[in-house]
Amino acid sequence: MARTLGELAAQFGCELIGDPAVSVSRVATLSNAGEGDLSFFANKFYRDELRASRAGAVIAREADAEDCPVPVLLSADPYLTYANIAALLHPAPPLAAGVHDTAVVADTAQIADGVQVSPQAVIDEDAVIGENVFVGPGAIIGPRCRIGDESRVLANATLVQDVAIGRRCIVHPGAVLGSDGFGNARSDTGWVKVPQVGGVRVGDDVEIGANSTIDRGAIDDTVIGNGVRIDNLVQIAHNVQIGDHTAMAAFTGVSGSTIIGKRCMFAGQSGIVGHITICDDVIVGGATMISKDIDQPGFYTGSFPGEQDREWKRKVARFRRLGELADRVGALEKSAKDQD
Amino acid sequence: MARTLGELAAQFGCELIGDPAVSVSRVATLSNAGEGDLSFFANKFYRDELRASRAGAVIAREADAEDCPVPVLLSADPYLTYANIAALLHPAPPLAAGVHDTAVVADTAQIADGVQVSPQAVIDEDAVIGENVFVGPGAIIGPRCRIGDESRVLANATLVQDVAIGRRCIVHPGAVLGSDGFGNARSDTGWVKVPQVGGVRVGDDVEIGANSTIDRGAIDDTVIGNGVRIDNLVQIAHNVQIGDHTAMAAFTGVSGSTIIGKRCMFAGQSGIVGHITICDDVIVGGATMISKDIDQPGFYTGSFPGEQDREWKRKVARFRRLGELADRVGALEKSAKDQD
Amino acid sequence: MARTLGELAAQFGCELIGDPAVSVSRVATLSNAGEGDLSFFANKFYRDELRASRAGAVIAREADAEDCPVPVLLSADPYLTYANIAALLHPAPPLAAGVHDTAVVADTAQIADGVQVSPQAVIDEDAVIGENVFVGPGAIIGPRCRIGDESRVLANATLVQDVAIGRRCIVHPGAVLGSDGFGNARSDTGWVKVPQVGGVRVGDDVEIGANSTIDRGAIDDTVIGNGVRIDNLVQIAHNVQIGDHTAMAAFTGVSGSTIIGKRCMFAGQSGIVGHITICDDVIVGGATMISKDIDQPGFYTGSFPGEQDREWKRKVARFRRLGELADRVGALEKSAKDQD
Repeated sequence: MARTLGELAAQFGCELIGDPAVSVSRVATLSNAGEGDLSFFANKFYRDELRASRAGAVIAREADAEDCPVPVLLSADPYLTYANIAALLHPAPPLAAGVHDTAVVADTAQIADGVQVSPQAVIDEDAVIGENVFVGPGAIIGPRCRIGDESRVLANATLVQDVAIGRRCIVHPGAVLGSDGFGNARSDTGWVKVPQVGGVRVGDDVEIGANSTIDRGAIDDTVIGNGVRIDNLVQIAHNVQIGDHTAMAAFTGVSGSTIIGKRCMFAGQSGIVGHITICDDVIVGGATMISKDIDQPGFYTGSFPGEQDREWKRKVARFRRLGELADRVGALEKSAKDQD
Repeated sequence: MARTLGELAAQFGCELIGDPAVSVSRVATLSNAGEGDLSFFANKFYRDELRASRAGAVIAREADAEDCPVPVLLSADPYLTYANIAALLHPAPPLAAGVHDTAVVADTAQIADGVQVSPQAVIDEDAVIGENVFVGPGAIIGPRCRIGDESRVLANATLVQDVAIGRRCIVHPGAVLGSDGFGNARSDTGWVKVPQVGGVRVGDDVEIGANSTIDRGAIDDTVIGNGVRIDNLVQIAHNVQIGDHTAMAAFTGVSGSTIIGKRCMFAGQSGIVGHITICDDVIVGGATMISKDIDQPGFYTGSFPGEQDREWKRKVARFRRLGELADRVGALEKSAKDQD
Repeated sequence: MARTLGELAAQFGCELIGDPAVSVSRVATLSNAGEGDLSFFANKFYRDELRASRAGAVIAREADAEDCPVPVLLSADPYLTYANIAALLHPAPPLAAGVHDTAVVADTAQIADGVQVSPQAVIDEDAVIGENVFVGPGAIIGPRCRIGDESRVLANATLVQDVAIGRRCIVHPGAVLGSDGFGNARSDTGWVKVPQVGGVRVGDDVEIGANSTIDRGAIDDTVIGNGVRIDNLVQIAHNVQIGDHTAMAAFTGVSGSTIIGKRCMFAGQSGIVGHITICDDVIVGGATMISKDIDQPGFYTGSFPGEQDREWKRKVARFRRLGELADRVGALEKSAKDQD
C-alpha cells in the first residue's frame, strides 16, 4: 500500500525535507531500510545508523534532520508519527466474512455482518458478536459473551462466559478472560470453593496479550477501562478495576479487588496486592511489589539490580549483620557519652 | 434456585434474625444487593455498606448483627457459610450428556455415563473419563489420561498424556498438565534432552487455574494432593509433590523435585527452588524466594515493598555502601580502643 | 525396546561392571528400579538409594561403582549418558502420517512426507511443513509459518504468523509464537498501537515450554538460536535475540530488543530489561533483575532468600533506618575528630 511522501506529509501534518514524489510502501529499521522503505529515528543510540541509512524516508525530529542523508518527514514525536503511518502502510488483513465449516456457532448466538469465524472456533449460547469482528482459529467464545464491533479474538483465546469486550479490542492468542477467580473459604476439612458469578467488562481499544488471564468477578464484574494495554502473561484477579489507558508489561500480577487508576504504567514482574487503590498516573518499576495504597502520582520502585554473585552475596551478608552493626554504633555512642 | 431464609438457616445451622419466609435466589455485594439477594459481611472495612444494605438477607457474625438493617443469618464464619450457600444458589450448569459431533474420541477411550464432551474437544487413545465429567470446548485429553467422576476440564485446557486427575477437580481454561519437564543434560555440543517419562497424579477436589502448567515427572510422577488450590499462571515442575489443601497464588513457581507439605499457602510471585522440602502449614509471602528446606510451620517472607523511586534509590545506595559504613564503625572502635 | 548392557556399553562407550547379557528396557529411579530397569547415580544425596538399589543396572562414575550392588555402566558424566540411553529406550512415539479428517489445511499450505496433522489442528495459507513433522491436536499454524523437519508443535500451541522454526524443535502445548510485541506510542488521547510486522526465527533443536510466549518483531525478526531451551511460562519480547544453547527457566522475562549471548542460563523468575546486551556464558540466579549490559561471563544475582517473617521484617526495618545509622556514625566521627 504505497504512499508518496507528499501524501504522508499532508495526511500526518509533517513538514517534508525531500522529494514529495518519492513513495514508500513498508516500514524497515534504519539499518535495513532501502528504497521504498520508511524508517524512524527516536533513540539517539542509533545516530550512526541514521547517518548511514539508505531508507526511502525517515521520520525524525527537526533537530536530527541534518544527520539524515535521505528524505525526512519532520515530527515532534517521531515514534507516534511512525505508529500512525505504519498502521496505514501495514493494515490488518481484511476479513473474509463468514463462518468456517468447522466452526460451531450456537443457535442462540447473534452474529452481525462482516464477521469472520475461523476454523475450529466455538461461539456458544447467547453470545453476541458485533460487526466486522474476527474470531480466530480455535478461539472459544463462551455463553453470553459480547464482542464489540471490529474487535479481534485471536487463535486459541478463550472468553469463558459473561465476558463483554468493547470495540476495536485485540485479545491475543491463548489469553483467557472470565475464568473463575481464586476464591476459597477455609473449613475444618479444607478449602471450600466460593462460587464466582461475576463477569468481565472490557472497554474499547483494549489489547490483552498472549496467554494473559483475567478472572471473572466473584459477585460484581472485573473491569478493564478503555485503551488499556496488557502485555503477555499478565494476571488480573477477580474484581480488579483498571482505569483507562493504563499499561502493564509481562508477568504483572494484580490481586483481587484492587483498583488501579488511569494512565498508570507497570513494568514487567511487578505485583500489586489485593484490596488496595492506586491513583492515576502511577508508574511502577520492574519486579516491584506494591503493598499498600498509592495516592500520589509518581514513580515507585522496590527492586535491586542484579550484579556479580560474589559481590551481591557480600552485600547480603552485611545486610544480615545490620543489627550487629547498629549495636556496635550504639555501644560507641554510649561509650562516647560516658566519657563526657 | 430460590430458598427461604428458614430453609437456609436449617440447612446450614445458622440462627436467623428476621422473617423465615423471606426468600433469596442469588448473591450480591452489600452495596448492590436488593430484594431476593443474599450478601455477607466478613470484612469490617465494609461496615458502612452493611448499615446501608438493602439485601434480602446478610450472613454475619452475631456481634455485627446489630449493624444490619435487614434479616441476618448468623454464622461464626460468614465467608464460609456464604461459600456454601452461594454454591446452592448458583450451582454449576447441568451437563448435557453426550459427545458433540465435532469432538474426536479415540476408539480405545472409555467414557462413562453422563459425560459431556464439548465441540472441538479431543479424547485420545486409552483415556478413561469418569461419570458426569465435563470436557470443555477445544480441550485435549491425551493418551492414557484418566479423569475422575464429576471433574471438569475447561476450554482449551490440555492434559498431554499420562495425567490422572481425581474426582470433582476443575482444570481451568488453557492449563497444561503433563508437558515435559525441563530436563537437559550438558554435553560438549549443547543440551541433550533428558526424556521425560513420568506422569502427573492429581488428587480429588483440586482446582488448577487458567494457563497454569504442571509438568510430567522425569521418571516417577509429579503429584498434587487432595484439595490443592492452584491459581492462574502457576508453574509446577517435574516431580514436585504438593501436600493436601495447599494453595498457591498466581505466578508461584515450584522447581523440580521439591516436596511441599499440607495446608501451605503461597502468595503471588513466590518461588521455591528445586530439591528442597517444605513442611506442613508454611505460609510464604508475596514475591518471596524460598531457597532451602523449611522444617518449622510459620510465615516466611523475603520481599521489599515498593516506594517512591527517589527514596528507594537512596536506600539502595546506602545498602551498597554498607561495607564502607562498617569500615567507618570499625575505625571508630579502633580509635576508641586506642584511647583507652 | 530392550537392550543388553553389552550393547549399551558398546554403543555409548561405557565400561561395564557386570553381566553383558543382562537387558534393560526402561528407566526408573534408584529407589523404584527393579529387574529390567536402568537407573543412574549423579547426586551424592542419593547414595543410600544407590547402595540399596535393585535396578537391572545403574549408570555411575567409576568412584561410585563400589557402592552399587548391581551391574554398573561406568560414565564420566552419568546424567548425560543416562539422557542418551533413556532416549534410546523411550523414543518418541512413531508418527502416524496423514492429516486427520477434522484438521483444516489451507490449499496453499505445503506439507512434506511423513507429516502427522492431529485432530482439530489448523494449517493456514502458505505455511510450509517439513518432513516428519508432528502437528498436535488443536495446534494452529498460521499464515506463512515454516516448520523444519522432524519438529513437533504440540497440542493447542499457536504459531501466529511468519514464524519459522528449525529442525527437531519441540513447541510445547499452549505456547504462542509470533504474537504482536508490546509496542505502543503515547498520544494525547491514549496509546496508539505500533504495528508489529516482523516475524520469529527459531533455530534447530530448540524447545519452547508450555504456555510460553515469543513475540514477533516490531520490524525485524525476533531470533532464537540453535539448541536454546525455554521452560514453561517464559516471555520473550519483540526483537530479542537469544544465542545458541542458552537456557531459561520458568517465568524468565526478556524485554524488547535485548541481545543475549550463547550458553547463558537464567534461573526462574529472572528478568532482563530491554535494549541491553548480555555476553556469552552468563548465569543469572533466581528472581534476579538484570538492568544493564553484562560484558563479563560469570554468575549474577540480586535476590534475597526468604526467612521467618518476624526476622525478615526486623531486617527490613533496619534497612529503612540505614540513613539514620549513617548519620549517627557521622556524628561519632565528628565528635571523635573534635576531641583530637
